[in-house]
Amino acid sequence: MKECAIGIDLGGTNLKGIVMERDGLCRHLTRIPTEAEKGGTRIFENIMTLIETLVQKEGSKTHILGIGIGTPGFVSDKGVVSGAENLPGWAGTQLYAPIVKRFCLPAIAANDVTVMALAEAAYGAGRGIRNMVCYALGTGIGGGIVIEHKLYKGSHGMAGELGHIPVETNGIPCNCGQRGCVERYASATGIVNLAKDLAAECPDSLTSSFVTEVRKSPGAVTAKMVYESVAKGDPVACAVNERVCDMLARAIGMTLNTLSPDRVVLGGGVMMAGRVIIDTVNKYLPAYCWPMIRKKCDIVAAALGEDAGVMGAGAMVFEEFGG
Amino acid sequence: MKECAIGIDLGGTNLKGIVMERDGLCRHLTRIPTEAEKGGTRIFENIMTLIETLVQKEGSKTHILGIGIGTPGFVSDKGVVSGAENLPGWAGTQLYAPIVKRFCLPAIAANDVTVMALAEAAYGAGRGIRNMVCYALGTGIGGGIVIEHKLYKGSHGMAGELGHIPVETNGIPCNCGQRGCVERYASATGIVNLAKDLAAECPDSLTSSFVTEVRKSPGAVTAKMVYESVAKGDPVACAVNERVCDMLARAIGMTLNTLSPDRVVLGGGVMMAGRVIIDTVNKYLPAYCWPMIRKKCDIVAAALGEDAGVMGAGAMVFEEFGG
Repeated sequence: MKECAIGIDLGGTNLKGIVMERDGLCRHLTRIPTEAEKGGTRIFENIMTLIETLVQKEGSKTHILGIGIGTPGFVSDKGVVSGAENLPGWAGTQLYAPIVKRFCLPAIAANDVTVMALAEAAYGAGRGIRNMVCYALGTGIGGGIVIEHKLYKGSHGMAGELGHIPVETNGIPCNCGQRGCVERYASATGIVNLAKDLAAECPDSLTSSFVTEVRKSPGAVTAKMVYESVAKGDPVACAVNERVCDMLARAIGMTLNTLSPDRVVLGGGVMMAGRVIIDTVNKYLPAYCWPMIRKKCDIVAAALGEDAGVMGAGAMVFEEFGG
Repeated sequence: MKECAIGIDLGGTNLKGIVMERDGLCRHLTRIPTEAEKGGTRIFENIMTLIETLVQKEGSKTHILGIGIGTPGFVSDKGVVSGAENLPGWAGTQLYAPIVKRFCLPAIAANDVTVMALAEAAYGAGRGIRNMVCYALGTGIGGGIVIEHKLYKGSHGMAGELGHIPVETNGIPCNCGQRGCVERYASATGIVNLAKDLAAECPDSLTSSFVTEVRKSPGAVTAKMVYESVAKGDPVACAVNERVCDMLARAIGMTLNTLSPDRVVLGGGVMMAGRVIIDTVNKYLPAYCWPMIRKKCDIVAAALGEDAGVMGAGAMVFEEFGG
């Protein structure tokens, strides 16, 4: 039987599990509720149940190389979770030992966005790319770095905190304690806040159906709504996009000057907006990095969508245990 | 005979060459003028002469694994130099083929500061450190990155342009086309300019022998002079140091959030000032990076001094060709 990996993607709402072949082919894909509100122990029990289900579906585990897990927060070399503030009771969990004991299979885990980056590198927009940086623009901004075709996690599993690159001196305060983090501007949350600010500042004389909509129900504004208005050419929504992409270009520029990657992959929910973000970032980028480095790097949209998490978790298994 | 490497360090004034054993032990060290003013062809001829001299001193080349070169600018995977604006006629030089042809030895080259970082990682302040970032604070600021004990150069030899990380929105314009690059503030050049600015702004009522000195002969100000006054507790010189280290801490913070290294090594001429720079950077750093990442990383001074360049060039040979 072909060698397989089990991949688990731990989300705030759902746990997704995959049995996957080396070329990314999905043999089984299952999803169960995370039950995050019931605490860290329950989350881990659910992960164990999900692995058990996947093993049973396969009927055998002799051809399974190991189990990979993508999780919010950081994972130490020894498999202990830290950070992950959105999952109370999850930090401190030891992921490797119980899995090894119960399933007699090796386990490997990493930050969920880092893992997404690996999936894009192995099967998606970064396929065949030697050095790659991935930004996931979601509720927050996460990052992942691939160096010489391998996931770079840092010695303590904390590398790739690209959402917390500061892009404005004395900028918007961030939960992390810094000011002006790119996450404050170019995440879905940042985009919504920026839209509200610009709508509030906007003179009444300016005709913008977007502003009318935002003022009517500011609580209902979403990044998707902003980009729908950008597509229609609304001037205020377009101004939001310009600012968002200027800030994103600053962060990307720093990544370029530091790592000189061959490709930057932009993913996450915000990228549903598509081409306009890449085009606008490319417009601002020349001011924020070395021309020679930029010439050697392109910026593309992620290709795998919402399955990137589980696929990356599986890809990690092939990377670590696949010879 | 013990395996050896030949290392060449190309400086604006001198070419240094070493024959070195794997543990860093120097068997021969020679220096000849670069003659940079005579153009790229002459520089390369001098490098060839220097290699010839070193081979002759060894009496044999059967135990020599290869030739490593540290050069200003970038070096492509194929051995072609780019950038290096300070050495007219040097960009475009193909380094590998002529060396292989003449000496029947493999060649490897990289940016001079990147190479210094490798030397510190192999024999100096970064010995045994898995992931490391090096800032060289000289006339400009260069950077080097070591990932999983190996030099990270990027696919096109351009990684580690850490001097061009912007640290101030709309800051001082830089030759590179960006604004607010850390090089504008924390290189020797930046420090001197800052000292002149602060001395000019300083009210006459303030007692500072440093200000008196700067105003008397502004053309003679050096970074060394600034830090001698810092050591004496001069208030204006100390204010310069605070600003320099605040800016440096911003750049280091971004490197930490991106790469989560185990150690940051600060080298270059400016670091002759020693401990005061590290202490002041550490004071500002918490505002500019994730606390958990900072806790896992220390900042230390480089250990190898001016021989880091040749030693790193030699170390590259062991890394690339040493099995």
